[in-house]
Amino acid sequence: MTSEAPTRAYRRLSVEERRSQLLGAALSLFAHRAPEEVSLDDVAEAAGVSRPLVYRYFPGGKQQLYEAALRSAAEELQKCFDEPRDGPLLPRLSRALDRYLAFVDQHDAGFSALLQGGSVAETSRTTAIVDGVRRAAAEHILGHLGAEEPGARLRMTVRMWITAVEAASLIWLDEDKQPPVGELRDWLVEQFVACLVATAGRDAQTAAVVRDALALESAEGPAGALVRGVLPVVGGAGHLL
Amino acid sequence: MTSEAPTRAYRRLSVEERRSQLLGAALSLFAHRAPEEVSLDDVAEAAGVSRPLVYRYFPGGKQQLYEAALRSAAEELQKCFDEPRDGPLLPRLSRALDRYLAFVDQHDAGFSALLQGGSVAETSRTTAIVDGVRRAAAEHILGHLGAEEPGARLRMTVRMWITAVEAASLIWLDEDKQPPVGELRDWLVEQFVACLVATAGRDAQTAAVVRDALALESAEGPAGALVRGVLPVVGGAGHLL
Repeated sequence: MTSEAPTRAYRRLSVEERRSQLLGAALSLFAHRAPEEVSLDDVAEAAGVSRPLVYRYFPGGKQQLYEAALRSAAEELQKCFDEPRDGPLLPRLSRALDRYLAFVDQHDAGFSALLQGGSVAETSRTTAIVDGVRRAAAEHILGHLGAEEPGARLRMTVRMWITAVEAASLIWLDEDKQPPVGELRDWLVEQFVACLVATAGRDAQTAAVVRDALALESAEGPAGALVRGVLPVVGGAGHLL
Repeated sequence: MTSEAPTRAYRRLSVEERRSQLLGAALSLFAHRAPEEVSLDDVAEAAGVSRPLVYRYFPGGKQQLYEAALRSAAEELQKCFDEPRDGPLLPRLSRALDRYLAFVDQHDAGFSALLQGGSVAETSRTTAIVDGVRRAAAEHILGHLGAEEPGARLRMTVRMWITAVEAASLIWLDEDKQPPVGELRDWLVEQFVACLVATAGRDAQTAAVVRDALALESAEGPAGALVRGVLPVVGGAGHLL
């Protein structure tokens, strides 16, 4: 009887359960290795099933499995930016970045392989999935900024910052996850404020957004720390006025 | 006699001249179309030669020609950042950005296809060429900042800004080259200052670099315009001190 148990367990999964079990196994492999370094045998072994069974669920083989895993990771990533629109803006952004950076930490090698390009598994479809995450992140942030019909300047600033965050994440992974994640998060929030403030200098809509956001921040929060850090640096620049 | 003239001209080119003629033809085709949309016949026709002749010079076919064209474009792009280290920093950066944005303008579709990824012509080699340009740009800028042995914070800030400039270039191409190029350039310079100032709030080396740079700027230059634009926006944030 005991020798039959694994077989019974093997058979008891529904199609949907089996599919998501295979996807979970694939996702954890693709998370820590470049797609080139993952074989269908690896996925079968990690899921404790046979290679033909993997093919039955994913007849397109590794590329189909990779794209399905990527789509599932993209959904998870998009959830990072789900944050209630209550309270001051910067703590909201900090919480979203905490979740995003935890995702980067957990999917390190897969995240790098995906964003650094040049992977054999990269196609116009995988690129579209990644672009979808970027677009969703931009819409979330613009929503939090509370700008109705955000103009070209504000949109461009947010999209530039998102790209800069991606670059910072890749560098962070490359530099053995230094600085500590909390420090990186605070710094990225400060970069966000800086980019918005610079744009506000030449765009009325962004200026209104920044004024409204700063009014709700406190001296004890991230905005206070930024202002106190920056003042001594620019304090000597009176000749520019 | 007149009918023989093209044949004589055809033969007179040296190997090196012919190679660079083919490369020039390829480059101008790849500049305005995605690699998928350029055939070897197109290159042969643009260069006024036969398809077998193109193959004689580039036996690896279109992929080899694409990579050679990319390498030649990368060299051109790297020259954009060559700028004497005289006078205030921001006008130097403005001149480099003028050349960079002129390159983006001239190679619009090719530039987008290359950086947006998912192209069938994208390989680890093409990715390495693009990364080489990014690294060279970062070294140029760090050199202009005059920091000896730039630390992790300063390097990361410069690399984040370079990625943000790439993102802005792609958005600019996507939005029919709006805003006008001079406005985009000034804005990117201001974003550079803002990112550095934010980092200066938590990094002593960056703070020293920013102080030295601002001391040489004038009220009439880009730094003056930025300060005057930003002050009214942050002027009401005294509660953060």
